[in-house]
Amino acid sequence: MSIDLEALYTDLHRHPELSFQETRTAGIAAAHLRDLGLEVHEGIGITGVIGVFANGAGPTAWLRADMDALPVTEETGLPYASTATGVDPDGHTVGVMHACGHDMHVTAMIGAVERLVAERDQWQGTVVVVIQPAEEYGAGARAMLDDGILDRFPHPDIVLGQHVTPLPVGTIGVRPGPQMSASDGLQVVLHGRGGHGSRPHATIDPIVLAAATIMRLQTVVSREVDPHDLAVVTVGSIHSGTKNNIIPPDATLQLSLRYPDDQLRTKVLEKVERVIRAEAMASGAEREPEITTLHTLPATINDEDATARAAAAFQSAFGEQAVIDPGLFTGSEDVSWFARDSGAPLVFWFWGGADPAVFAASAAAGTLDHDIPTNHSPFFAP
Amino acid sequence: MSIDLEALYTDLHRHPELSFQETRTAGIAAAHLRDLGLEVHEGIGITGVIGVFANGAGPTAWLRADMDALPVTEETGLPYASTATGVDPDGHTVGVMHACGHDMHVTAMIGAVERLVAERDQWQGTVVVVIQPAEEYGAGARAMLDDGILDRFPHPDIVLGQHVTPLPVGTIGVRPGPQMSASDGLQVVLHGRGGHGSRPHATIDPIVLAAATIMRLQTVVSREVDPHDLAVVTVGSIHSGTKNNIIPPDATLQLSLRYPDDQLRTKVLEKVERVIRAEAMASGAEREPEITTLHTLPATINDEDATARAAAAFQSAFGEQAVIDPGLFTGSEDVSWFARDSGAPLVFWFWGGADPAVFAASAAAGTLDHDIPTNHSPFFAP
Amino acid sequence: MSIDLEALYTDLHRHPELSFQETRTAGIAAAHLRDLGLEVHEGIGITGVIGVFANGAGPTAWLRADMDALPVTEETGLPYASTATGVDPDGHTVGVMHACGHDMHVTAMIGAVERLVAERDQWQGTVVVVIQPAEEYGAGARAMLDDGILDRFPHPDIVLGQHVTPLPVGTIGVRPGPQMSASDGLQVVLHGRGGHGSRPHATIDPIVLAAATIMRLQTVVSREVDPHDLAVVTVGSIHSGTKNNIIPPDATLQLSLRYPDDQLRTKVLEKVERVIRAEAMASGAEREPEITTLHTLPATINDEDATARAAAAFQSAFGEQAVIDPGLFTGSEDVSWFARDSGAPLVFWFWGGADPAVFAASAAAGTLDHDIPTNHSPFFAP
Amino acid sequence: MSIDLEALYTDLHRHPELSFQETRTAGIAAAHLRDLGLEVHEGIGITGVIGVFANGAGPTAWLRADMDALPVTEETGLPYASTATGVDPDGHTVGVMHACGHDMHVTAMIGAVERLVAERDQWQGTVVVVIQPAEEYGAGARAMLDDGILDRFPHPDIVLGQHVTPLPVGTIGVRPGPQMSASDGLQVVLHGRGGHGSRPHATIDPIVLAAATIMRLQTVVSREVDPHDLAVVTVGSIHSGTKNNIIPPDATLQLSLRYPDDQLRTKVLEKVERVIRAEAMASGAEREPEITTLHTLPATINDEDATARAAAAFQSAFGEQAVIDPGLFTGSEDVSWFARDSGAPLVFWFWGGADPAVFAASAAAGTLDHDIPTNHSPFFAP
Repeated sequence: MSIDLEALYTDLHRHPELSFQETRTAGIAAAHLRDLGLEVHEGIGITGVIGVFANGAGPTAWLRADMDALPVTEETGLPYASTATGVDPDGHTVGVMHACGHDMHVTAMIGAVERLVAERDQWQGTVVVVIQPAEEYGAGARAMLDDGILDRFPHPDIVLGQHVTPLPVGTIGVRPGPQMSASDGLQVVLHGRGGHGSRPHATIDPIVLAAATIMRLQTVVSREVDPHDLAVVTVGSIHSGTKNNIIPPDATLQLSLRYPDDQLRTKVLEKVERVIRAEAMASGAEREPEITTLHTLPATINDEDATARAAAAFQSAFGEQAVIDPGLFTGSEDVSWFARDSGAPLVFWFWGGADPAVFAASAAAGTLDHDIPTNHSPFFAP
Repeated sequence: MSIDLEALYTDLHRHPELSFQETRTAGIAAAHLRDLGLEVHEGIGITGVIGVFANGAGPTAWLRADMDALPVTEETGLPYASTATGVDPDGHTVGVMHACGHDMHVTAMIGAVERLVAERDQWQGTVVVVIQPAEEYGAGARAMLDDGILDRFPHPDIVLGQHVTPLPVGTIGVRPGPQMSASDGLQVVLHGRGGHGSRPHATIDPIVLAAATIMRLQTVVSREVDPHDLAVVTVGSIHSGTKNNIIPPDATLQLSLRYPDDQLRTKVLEKVERVIRAEAMASGAEREPEITTLHTLPATINDEDATARAAAAFQSAFGEQAVIDPGLFTGSEDVSWFARDSGAPLVFWFWGGADPAVFAASAAAGTLDHDIPTNHSPFFAP
Repeated sequence: MSIDLEALYTDLHRHPELSFQETRTAGIAAAHLRDLGLEVHEGIGITGVIGVFANGAGPTAWLRADMDALPVTEETGLPYASTATGVDPDGHTVGVMHACGHDMHVTAMIGAVERLVAERDQWQGTVVVVIQPAEEYGAGARAMLDDGILDRFPHPDIVLGQHVTPLPVGTIGVRPGPQMSASDGLQVVLHGRGGHGSRPHATIDPIVLAAATIMRLQTVVSREVDPHDLAVVTVGSIHSGTKNNIIPPDATLQLSLRYPDDQLRTKVLEKVERVIRAEAMASGAEREPEITTLHTLPATINDEDATARAAAAFQSAFGEQAVIDPGLFTGSEDVSWFARDSGAPLVFWFWGGADPAVFAASAAAGTLDHDIPTNHSPFFAP
Repeated sequence: MSIDLEALYTDLHRHPELSFQETRTAGIAAAHLRDLGLEVHEGIGITGVIGVFANGAGPTAWLRADMDALPVTEETGLPYASTATGVDPDGHTVGVMHACGHDMHVTAMIGAVERLVAERDQWQGTVVVVIQPAEEYGAGARAMLDDGILDRFPHPDIVLGQHVTPLPVGTIGVRPGPQMSASDGLQVVLHGRGGHGSRPHATIDPIVLAAATIMRLQTVVSREVDPHDLAVVTVGSIHSGTKNNIIPPDATLQLSLRYPDDQLRTKVLEKVERVIRAEAMASGAEREPEITTLHTLPATINDEDATARAAAAFQSAFGEQAVIDPGLFTGSEDVSWFARDSGAPLVFWFWGGADPAVFAASAAAGTLDHDIPTNHSPFFAP
């Protein structure tokens, strides 16, 4: 093949871009797709790219990849490690890294399209390449759909997506039905009253309020969710205060919530809100906390029939043992918006990015979670 | 008098500058002092100003004012409210406000020097005006001393300083002995292990660790300090994480600790460190927390004799009832470094900045702390 | 039939007895078994009863029931509600109630034996009735085995047990493999230092230590266990102090831990112990916490073949739809000691005790957990 | 003198009695007083004793001692250590000990009366000996007053009381004005919903609710009370649950609150109640917590003039340096009800019970709180 995929990968890895800022990545992907003969459209949903390859009569498959990186400072020590920084939505300068492997996704997409084009006489139909921005914000698929892609491009008969994970290289994980959880991102502003650090009684300390709230939120999962159910309540960020001796007026938390279905989602959201409001009361806060939704991701549900066909294809390509049921993932994806809005069946699968030898040794030792950096870790290196 | 002090004050208030960045303020103060005939030196201890006025034989008095503002966004709604922003030491853009009244201090100093110069035939000796930067960082006095001012300027026979507070206008608060507390500023970095927000078991969550630490730190004052003793443990800032669905690798806290003496200081520091280390253990943290000292401020101890003389002078000037014993303040000051390093006696007093009518009504209603914005509040408006 | 089972049930319900104190219950059960013609042995494992019914050649089945009640004050308002009290192992007088349905188990056993005896010509073999004490302490099965029952009575070819649950009446829940969780009961004594309630600084407050420990223990499940895994960490009792103004020297907690397998058991026990020891450190405790194991219950694992046969028998008796897979229960049982020690296969199933109409309405409304009192509730009324 | 006070003391120490159960102690005291010629009345305020000694014209002094012991198991190892047990108001059997020195108070009273009687020709007037029960419950003075003692016995011109403390032997601590704090004892019942320990989601866990409440209560003192003010919020007992695997329906806390004045009392009570109610809300509790007042003790305020005279008398008797200002104590007393109800001035003082050598060494080492067991400690041994 003519495209040097390894060079493409290390280049993308070295130059990660935050959500909705993926202009360099999008440009590179678009250029490759154009070189391969696709009809290419850029700037869709801010920075998304669509490539259409019509290859005669037949069904239309949407192949989706995501391309944004994370505000994580890379610590892998790899020769092609990122030293990039970016400005996050709060205006803070942060390290940026492809800590979730979307650089792999773009590279794999280009490689796949190159092969589809090369082997165009072996299949018929239309391939729509969808390279979406801002998967990490759970907002990119929505943005492309809101930009009218269902009207502007061939309607899908199937939507296909994939994600690299810490499974051994060569393994495909896919299951019919629920594959990834539903998720909400919340932002919570806790209002206290500011003042001098030496006069706490004249203030309402928002940092102590935040700490009490975070400790109490732990009890939602530990006490209020059926131990058989899967639910996650993560406080992923907290920011409050500018100086050691000023008690600030408020504290801002960002929460990530996960659940496999809508019934548990409703319950957990209620409980989380109840805790937040009651803790503000316990502090004697004079203003209600502000709770805003950052994003809502639906559960990723694989179509039964389409998944069976895809699994069979993977088995014939990679061997029967290479395809496993990875179980329900607690992570979430916005790929399913494409399927939900279009009414097309979805197949979303995982592929392994971990050294099989390390994986096998760690699995035997029961230290998998410890030995292999997971997605979003500063050490993630598939 | 020829200097429009009100215009000076509102101008300074409108243009606050963060610690060690007070170039505009220093320039204005230096210009006034020069106009008044003093020998002026700028850029001492980065941005400090020294003005010397020799008026014949006699003792040398150092008059000290501070001039830095705070990273607080003003919410007073005053016509001369600040809309300024600045960049704090972490590189964050923050609102800036004279929320501690140092604009008043500079204005009062210029007014006092104007009068001393005008009435120069009524006194003899040398006045050294010390306008220091970065009192809020507890670092400005140190910086000026490290810049050699004890060698370069007339040695003090007495050091005088003052601070505006929410006492009624016209009231002076001063006491012999301990006037303000000793204080330490600590920075604490709590190390966890980062990862994806949906896989908490593969991480060590530093935000939960921080929350547990903050809640436990409350028990130092509530359970471990003699209720008769005065101690304050404030967590003034916490920063961790960049996004709702990433569990970050660490969390950074800034603490402000107060105590009236060295014995209690030692105890509280030990207890605070014990809590921080044990909570990291409770989380199974793989790296010890890093605890660094941001600043150490000694107790502000007023000289007995000099304070008696100053109090008598205040009484003859403002009336006997205007001078009160304000008790030991929990706040801290770096003014005493000037006295400690030079060996000169110190007198440091408070002057009222609150509307006497509002003060009286609030005191009667027992709502003083609520009605009158204290120093460091975004509503502070003496 | 001649035995009035309803009268037997209401009589047992009215007269509940705590673990290892079930002398009245044991006597009644033994009398019935004797009347039915069994060879009966009492006082085995303190208060256990064995009844042997040899009915010709054939396999030996052990049928096991448990008979102890719980230290719960009944609030059902039923005409036959318990008003009994008992003395628990700590010497405290407590209300006692059959809040877990063991009165049903004894009644059902007598009814079943009556029928087996009546229909003795339809089967062959030996039935050993095992009525065990102290299932709630996880100690009764062990006590009977330690009393030598495997040597003294016919060896089982199969062990059968059952439990009433809030499933609808007429439903049988049974599954091959893991049916109930492994469990440990821990007692934790946290040592502080006692003193007067007005002088906390001269003490080490064990109640604050206990509170911090309990809050921190929540994070074991919420943060350290894979959300896909089932684990429960319950603090079921806390006792400390005698008076409002004395800070006591220590606090005693009792914990109940659940997990489906030994690997997670090891992890959770390690984490729980780590939290307990670190929190004692955070309090500056001078003595290590004492952690003792109250009981260890193995997972209840149903034999695949025997369960298939039992399920088929249930289906033919109650209808195909009456038999469901109830999933893995978080509760634990000590019945499996009989199977583990003897090497015989185990089948343990659940039978419904809830009004089907109430159950159906609650299930539709999603309020099952709320509407139907669960085992161990003071309102439990199957 | 004829009474062997040491034998009396060790006998009383060996036979401590809980509040309102002091029949043996009262009997012994009454017998001694009768032997000394006083007119004695027993059973006043349940177990109180009044002895009247009329010695001619002159003022009437009430001398008050208290006689109840505490539910503390003695650990002093003294030859005359208590091994007594008693039944507390909750029906629990507890160790009982004179851990607060009331045995000393009774002994000292008998010794003082013996001497007053012996030296009757050196003074004139009436002495009323008041030996009250249940000082530890803050209820004994109230009970005696409610029994009509102001009407039945000579009205006091002065009320005198004393307490042994860990000051060096030979030292008297007394001050005009506030001598001991006001105090409230609260009982709080937190209602959850009970259930099986393995099904937390079907319950509302009152133990987690209690833990969160206790941690939050720490912030009342650490954040909401002016660091200059003295306030104590102690949770002295917590009881919940009977067994490790039952989640109980409720938890009961007992709190002891201290403050020097009524204004702070009102604030602290409001804040404590706010925290308790909000934490119940955070748990989703279906019933409000029940907060009941166990006792309310007023501040012990010494009369200025009477205290000056008493201090002078102490100085002439024990030497000038023996009399110190002990500061405001955080402990509380019900002695002041006698003064408040009668309108008579009060003098209440402390006398030292610590070995002066140990005291001096510990004070020098700064380990006083650690080395000398304080009142209510199981090691208290004046």
